[in-house]
Order: sequence, then structure tokens, then C-alpha cells
Amino acid sequence: MATNVPPRIVIVGGVAGGMSAATRARRLNDTASITVLEAGPYVSYANCGIPYALGGVIQDDDKLLLHTPESLKARFNIDVQTDSEVVGIDREKKEVTVKRRSVKEEAKIAYDKLILAQGAKSFVLPIPGKDLPCVFTLQTIDELNSVRAYIQEYSSKRAVVIGGGFIGLEAAENLKNLGMDVSIVEFAPHVLAPIDAEMAEPIHAELRKQNVHLYLNAKVNCIEETGPDHTVTVHTASGLAIPTDIILMTVGIRARIDLAKTAGLTVGRTGITVNKYMQTSDPDIYAVGDMVESPHRILHKPLQVALAGPANRQGRLSADHIFGKKIAYRGSVGTAVCKVFDLCIGSVGLSVEALRASGREPQWVTVHPPDHASYYPGASPITLRVIFDGETGELLGAQGVGKKNVDKRIDVLATAIQAEMRICDLEHLELAYAPPYGSAKDPVNMAGFVGSNVLRGDVEIVHSEDVAAMNLAEYQVVDVRSESEFGKGHMVNAVNLPIDGLRETAFALEKGRKVLVYCFVGYRGYLAYRVLKQMGFEVVNLDGGFKSVAEGGYGALVAEG
Amino acid sequence: MATNVPPRIVIVGGVAGGMSAATRARRLNDTASITVLEAGPYVSYANCGIPYALGGVIQDDDKLLLHTPESLKARFNIDVQTDSEVVGIDREKKEVTVKRRSVKEEAKIAYDKLILAQGAKSFVLPIPGKDLPCVFTLQTIDELNSVRAYIQEYSSKRAVVIGGGFIGLEAAENLKNLGMDVSIVEFAPHVLAPIDAEMAEPIHAELRKQNVHLYLNAKVNCIEETGPDHTVTVHTASGLAIPTDIILMTVGIRARIDLAKTAGLTVGRTGITVNKYMQTSDPDIYAVGDMVESPHRILHKPLQVALAGPANRQGRLSADHIFGKKIAYRGSVGTAVCKVFDLCIGSVGLSVEALRASGREPQWVTVHPPDHASYYPGASPITLRVIFDGETGELLGAQGVGKKNVDKRIDVLATAIQAEMRICDLEHLELAYAPPYGSAKDPVNMAGFVGSNVLRGDVEIVHSEDVAAMNLAEYQVVDVRSESEFGKGHMVNAVNLPIDGLRETAFALEKGRKVLVYCFVGYRGYLAYRVLKQMGFEVVNLDGGFKSVAEGGYGALVAEG
Repeated sequence: MATNVPPRIVIVGGVAGGMSAATRARRLNDTASITVLEAGPYVSYANCGIPYALGGVIQDDDKLLLHTPESLKARFNIDVQTDSEVVGIDREKKEVTVKRRSVKEEAKIAYDKLILAQGAKSFVLPIPGKDLPCVFTLQTIDELNSVRAYIQEYSSKRAVVIGGGFIGLEAAENLKNLGMDVSIVEFAPHVLAPIDAEMAEPIHAELRKQNVHLYLNAKVNCIEETGPDHTVTVHTASGLAIPTDIILMTVGIRARIDLAKTAGLTVGRTGITVNKYMQTSDPDIYAVGDMVESPHRILHKPLQVALAGPANRQGRLSADHIFGKKIAYRGSVGTAVCKVFDLCIGSVGLSVEALRASGREPQWVTVHPPDHASYYPGASPITLRVIFDGETGELLGAQGVGKKNVDKRIDVLATAIQAEMRICDLEHLELAYAPPYGSAKDPVNMAGFVGSNVLRGDVEIVHSEDVAAMNLAEYQVVDVRSESEFGKGHMVNAVNLPIDGLRETAFALEKGRKVLVYCFVGYRGYLAYRVLKQMGFEVVNLDGGFKSVAEGGYGALVAEG
Repeated sequence: MATNVPPRIVIVGGVAGGMSAATRARRLNDTASITVLEAGPYVSYANCGIPYALGGVIQDDDKLLLHTPESLKARFNIDVQTDSEVVGIDREKKEVTVKRRSVKEEAKIAYDKLILAQGAKSFVLPIPGKDLPCVFTLQTIDELNSVRAYIQEYSSKRAVVIGGGFIGLEAAENLKNLGMDVSIVEFAPHVLAPIDAEMAEPIHAELRKQNVHLYLNAKVNCIEETGPDHTVTVHTASGLAIPTDIILMTVGIRARIDLAKTAGLTVGRTGITVNKYMQTSDPDIYAVGDMVESPHRILHKPLQVALAGPANRQGRLSADHIFGKKIAYRGSVGTAVCKVFDLCIGSVGLSVEALRASGREPQWVTVHPPDHASYYPGASPITLRVIFDGETGELLGAQGVGKKNVDKRIDVLATAIQAEMRICDLEHLELAYAPPYGSAKDPVNMAGFVGSNVLRGDVEIVHSEDVAAMNLAEYQVVDVRSESEFGKGHMVNAVNLPIDGLRETAFALEKGRKVLVYCFVGYRGYLAYRVLKQMGFEVVNLDGGFKSVAEGGYGALVAEG
């Protein structure tokens, strides 16, 4: 600030980004006037916990309420006004117009600096039946209370979750926790849009194992009111009719841009446009969190990233900038994780699908190591996909799925990506190892070894999806696992030449015909690749091995043993 | 290799580093002659699992044996010779002399490239009684079998572990698993030399809680044979006499340098000297693993780092170099983790103590956040210390202790350190958040926030150890926690001015006298710092808060409530 008069800061929205801005501003300046205007009845609550509060995993809603207007006044001397919707910004006069539920007349509040942190609203499919009383979204505590009250009042036994994103899957699990019969209806071929199809496949299997009805490639056409007992039917384009008692619509969110747009601020494709200090096109107005577009560090273009971490950081940085600390927002990499019953799935950066959609053709490797040393009790496998530029080795993304400690590997890879490491750097990472926690070669190292081998040309790989598209008749398909593993199921038309002894048995193979080699997870296949390549064969190894084929949704490639 | 004749590679030592070198060499060249000479009876075993095999956590020793000479022959065409001790290297003739237990005459084996991977041997204190039959070290499967046989034969009920390092603590826990009465005798003031005293204090508490007798600052003078019933007594310099049935000596290791030294290879202070490709002073002889000194990335000087991860990587890189891949070893950061009963403790880089010993005076911050969102069931606190250069922000080390998910934060910080991030970079890290796994502001972010505030001068902190040395009479000690927290115990001579309302009550403080402010973990203390500082007080905040004092071994500073 140019003058010594403490500034008047007005913040629109009192949850993650807004409250981080407010409290950071107070810490930096104890005399500034800080006013938070929140349209809803609650501020500073943990909305990520809402699905778990619905399911009774979090038993006391008060745990979600981190602060009240009174506690924020006492601790931070912040003036928090709930039920106060900002309906207009006068940029000339530098004041906002506030509409209060309890008061007829609109109020005007002057600002020196305005921070917009209005978040995003749940998107609702524009379909017949969307306004039926049994159709809900699940983003706020008010909505949580409404869903709960409805279930109780009508003793709802069946639920349909429309949309299999992170919130949808968390909601499905928690509705199951309530003892309900749950269906998920997903428009796309797989749940979890940021994840690649093959990596989402174990999640599909887990949902089915937990008796969740999963409908993929299912476009909802309408919701039909069917009975006087408050039952409805979800109809899809393909003719499915799913009767249910309650519907949660978790089909994504849309940035709240109306206020900013009306005020003449620049708005991008997915949210408010901001610079690296979170300033909008009006330098006295900042915008943060789910309502803005910020640069995606892999995609190199602005994108809405609706995650709590970035929202909190952006709020903090907007307050920093108001008080002269020019700390730039570095952009997002979209690090995310989700519990789906007994599995954990996480991702960072871009998926293969998203990279292709942006015009890039990435390379990737797949490993299935145990989460900790396999000789120590309780180890369980993680499937880890690391995506990189096939020329430069630049890390572009990573995805992991497994029962345990997936989040650890995603966090390590998220750190590596933000440090602009390359695939070969993962070979060298010195990570913590003791038998209960890891391996001397951590799953992240393993991905680094495989990826570096690919990048340096020490092995050529094909992916499950390539195999599904290949003319396998051109190949000699060689399964190098043991006879007993082979006997339990293998790839169609495969011959079994176990790795132990391959140097002797390989002479049975035709010299002029290409060889596709595989094992269970890819390592013995790689050893076989090295043996056969040096014997003069033209050979490729199957990335991620038979496990990637069998568990990745390529059942047509599998022959029973 | 200059010629096309496949090289003869001889490897001395068949565990982590040696076997990684052998198998990597084979993958790179399928025709090279690869011979592994192992002095003991086993190769390629998981020695990190040995304490757990002793305690019965790993129930089947075979799980530790990853390979046999036969399986290595079948899979890798590697000639593995056990019970084969290399007793001499003729560098002129390029051959080694091998002594076999079963054969009288010594054999000569020629090499083109020699890789030494002999590891380190357990150090045994040169004290009277060290050769008594009840005194063991615990590094090899042979030693495991000996300890187990002794306990069974003499029905040992009491054990003394001399040395509280990682192996000592794992051994103590596993002897407890066997139902024994266990004592740990540690020479230093705290267990776990790579960890700072205050961070080791919760481990002391855990050991005592688990009924392990813990003797610190205890120098063992001798072991006295006391009874015909095979009991002995451990005597310390301070006059302690600890009767016991069996003794495990886990007081560190020494690189096996004799063979290399006799052959005239350059040897450093702690191990064999190698270049970044793991070549010794003879370019045809490599050395890897626990027997070498490699550059420490923080200390910037050569140091023995006896960890499985670095040993495996070095083995791999030596084979790479033999076959023309010049991939440099980047040095070690000493990432380590250890389970101690219900706690996990981990570290990376250097401790404050180690940095001081090397002539540096670092800055550090301490946070005590929950391992995941506190509103989701099962959260438990982590104490995290992040050490950095107070001028540049360069990350120098990190330590963590807690019940769960400490390893995750250590791995993230290890990655950050290896990426040469600075403390302020930790503010920006986008890590995975869902309520079961983390927080919108991860513990690593929290450390970044606090550290950046310190580095930027937004807060001045003192550490518990500073307070212990300060003349507290010069300070107004202000506890800003709630009245009820204060009532349960606080710092000596503290007054209670709760943070909520501090702006009103602070006027009671003397303007000219310095203020030491604290809360439970440091955050409210920081808020109070900002309020008081802007009111014109000279103020410091206690890093890590009352928890760091109460649990960090500074009981003299605590007053009962």
C-alpha cells in the first residue's frame, strides 16, 4: 500500500481461499479493516469432509466447522458477515452491494482491495426431472443437511450417484456406509476423468466387489417420477431404467463468474482470468480458488483447478501481494488422491488421455511393486504409471492405485514434477527404506529404472492398449513366467518359455519373426528382452506385464489356463 | 570396453551392491563372463530383514533369501561361488586369489574388471568380555542363526543391546517380541545418532513405555562372566551393573578395507576412495556399497553411507560404467527410517548436531501437525523438524517422528533436498489431499510456511534449547493458549493471556521488557507474535510451542498446572 492508512479489505466468500486470504492479511497487518462476506450460513468449514459426514465416518458435523464468525472476530479481529450475498461491484466507487436474507435493503461496503473467493457451484445436468425433490448436489453443509433429512424422512434405501468423479466415488462409498443400495452412472467409459482408463479399471473392480452397481458409457436422459412412494427412475440414452429413492448429482462444478463478469472483469474459458499474483484485470480486485483459471504447469495454459490446496495457497498469496510481498503463484499440477473403499487412487500432472487431447503423444511405464519389502508382513502391490516425454524425459504425470501408501508415491512424484525432474532423475532418488515402509528400490525408483531403460533404448516396450490394437499374428508371443503361473491363465496364442533357462530354449523361436515377450509385472519380460535382443531377435516387452492386461480391462487378450 | 571380446567381470561380495552390479552387468551384456565370489554361505539376501526374522515378525527365513547360486545361474547365467573368500588382488596380472573353506589350495581367478562389494563388518567394542559366547553381532544370516540357537539352548530371558542405532532399536523391539527383558545401553546422550536430541526424546519415551530399560550416557567398560548358569553382567563407567543372558552389540560398522588396502588402492578416512563412477584409484577396480566413501550431498565431503538403497544404486552404476554408460553417482543424503514399536522415526540430510559439528550454525523450524485432516478419524500428530540455511534457505535436513505417515513426509523432503529446493519452495508444493491421507496444508507445507516466515523476517523464533539456556527473568513469558490448556501445565513463570482477546489484554504487558510467547504447537504463538510485534513489543515465538518443550526433554522448564 502506498499510504500508511490501513487498507479496507473486503473478501467475497468465507471458505478455503477467502478465509486463507483473510487470516493471512490479518497476520501481515493488525490494523487493516478486513470484512468477509459469505452468502451462506457457514464460514471456514472443511467441505472435503462432507461425504464422510454423510456416511457417519465423521460422526460430529461440528468437526467440519473450523471457525465461527465469533471465533474469527476474537482471534483475528475479522468482521465476518454470513447470509450476505454480494450482488454487485462498483469498480469506480470501489464498493460492493450486499444483499442480506434478513434485511430488505441492500447495503454498500467500500473497499480498497477486493478479493473474490466465491468458489464454484455444482453443475446440474439440464435434463427433465432435475428439479425433483429427491435430486441433490453435495457441496455445502446446507446440502449435506438436506440430503440427510430427505433420507430420514422418506427412509430412502436406494441411491443413484450421477457422475463418477472424486466426489461421486466418495459419496457412493458413504451412501454404502449408510446401508443403501448404490448405483453409479458415469457418462464416460471410465470413472475418474483425470485417470487413464486402464488405471481406473481396478477401481471399477473394487466398486463391483463392494456391490456398487456401476454403469459406464451411460448418458442420463431424464429422471422420471414413478411412484407416489417418492420413487423415481433414472433413464439413460441406451435404454437403462434405474429405479431409486434419491439421486446425488456429482457431475462437476462451474466457476462462479457472474459477479465478476457483470463487473466487467476478464473471464477465461473455465474461470476468472488472473495474473500470477492473483490480480484480475482490475488490479484492486483479486480472485482465488475454484473460481479462477490459473496456469497448469504441464499443460502450459490457464485451467480451473478446483482443489483445496491451491485455493488456500492462492488466498494466502493474494494477501501477500496486497501487503507488498510479491510471491508468484507457480501454477498447479493437479495433485489429487481419493479413497475408494479398500483402494487408494492418486494422480498428478496430466493423464495419457489428457496429453493426447492436448496434441501430445507421451511415453509411459507401468510397474506393480509391493508397497513395502515383500518379505515383511502386510505388503500389497501398487500399480504405478509414470508418464513422460519420450524425447526429453520431462515428467508429465503419474497415477497410482493400490491398497496402501499410494499417496506417498504420488506426493514424491508430485514433488519431482514440481522440481522439474526428469524420468532419469527418479533412478537416483534416495528414499527412506526400512522393511515396514519401503524397499531398497522404491516403487518410484523402479519406475525410474524402467523409464530410463526405455528412454536410453535399453528396452522397447509396448503397452496393453497397443497389444489390443496390434495384429498379434505377426508376433511370436512368449510368456516367460513359470509353468505353474502360465497354467493359471496367459495371453492368447502365447508359448511358455520360462525365463530360467531361456538362453537354451530360445533357439526354438523363429529368427525372422517379431517376438512379444511378457511376464507378470514386466521385470522378467525385460530380462528376456535383453537375452533375446542380444541373440539377434526383434523383440518388444509388454509394459506392466500380464497384470496390466488382466487387470487393465483387456480381457479379450487373456486365455484361461 | 575397447575390444569386442566379452569382458571377464569378477565381483567380490554377493549381497546388495555386488548382486546389483552382477545382474545389471548381465542385462547389459549377455555374453560377458560374470563371477561372484562370496565369503559367506548365502548370497542376495535381505539383511535389513534380519532383526524381524529374529523376532518372528518374518516367520520364514527363506523369505530373506531372494536368490540362490542355482537360481542366479538359471536366470542370469552368473557364476556364483559361496564360501569363497578373496584374500588377494594381483593388479599387475589382473587376478584375484580365492580361499575356499572346502579346498586346501588357493585358486586364482583372472578379471578384466573387478568390483569390490564386501560391505562393512560389525564393530565390536574392544572391551574385556567381548569374546564371551553370549556376545553377538547381528548382520548376517549366520549370526541370526547363532543368536537364535543360543537363546534356545540357554533359554535366555534377558538381553542387553549395546548401541541404540537403527539396528539396535530394531533388535530391541524384536527381542521384546520374543518375550525377553530388554535393556539398551547407549554411549551418547540419546539414541539414533543421525537424529537431534529433542527429536529422539519421543523415542526414549516409547522405549520406556514398552518396558525397555534405557541407559543413556552409558559407556560399557566390560562384560563380566558371573555365573555357571551362563549369566553375565554388563558394567558401565558410571558403575551400572546390568545382569543379562545375552548381549547384542550394535555399535556401528567398519568398512572392509583390508583387501583393497593391501592391494594398494587409495583408502579414505571412512572407506575406499572412489570417483563418481565408483572406480577406485585403479580404473579397472570398482568399489560400491558400505565399504566406500561417497560424497555426501549436504556435507560436501566423502563419507561412508551404509544404506541398502545407495549400495544397490552404486552397484548398478559400476556395471553401467563398465559397459560404457557414464552415469555419475550423485552422492548420498542419508535418507533413513526406522520403526520403533508404535512409533516411526525418519531423517534425511544432516541433523543440527551434525551441522554444528561440521562448523555450520543452521536454522530450523518445528511443527506438530496431524498426519491427516484432524476432522477425519484416526489422525495422529507428527513432529517434523526441517533444517535450513538461515541466510539462503537451502534445505539441509529433516527429521520426523510420529505414529504414522512419517515416512511419506521424509520421502517428500528427501526428494525436495535432492532437487535442491529451498525452504520457501515447500510453501508452494502441491501435495495430495483427501481427508484420509493429508490436509489442504500438508505438514511439509506447514514447515515451509513457518520456515519462510522466519527467513523473510515475519517472525522471530527461539528453540526449546535456546530457552533452556536463556535468562528467563529478562522475559515476560506469555502463554496464549486457553485457560483450560494452561491449567494442565505450562512453562515456568508464564502468564496466561489467551490468543482470543489478546488485543485487549496485551496492554497489561510491560512495554520495555522482552516477551517470549508460546502456545501448544507454535501457530497461535505466531499469531500472538504478529499482534504484539505490531503493538510495538519486542517479542519472540517459541518454535514448536509447549509440546516441543514438554516432549523434547526440557522438563525443568515445565510447571505443573
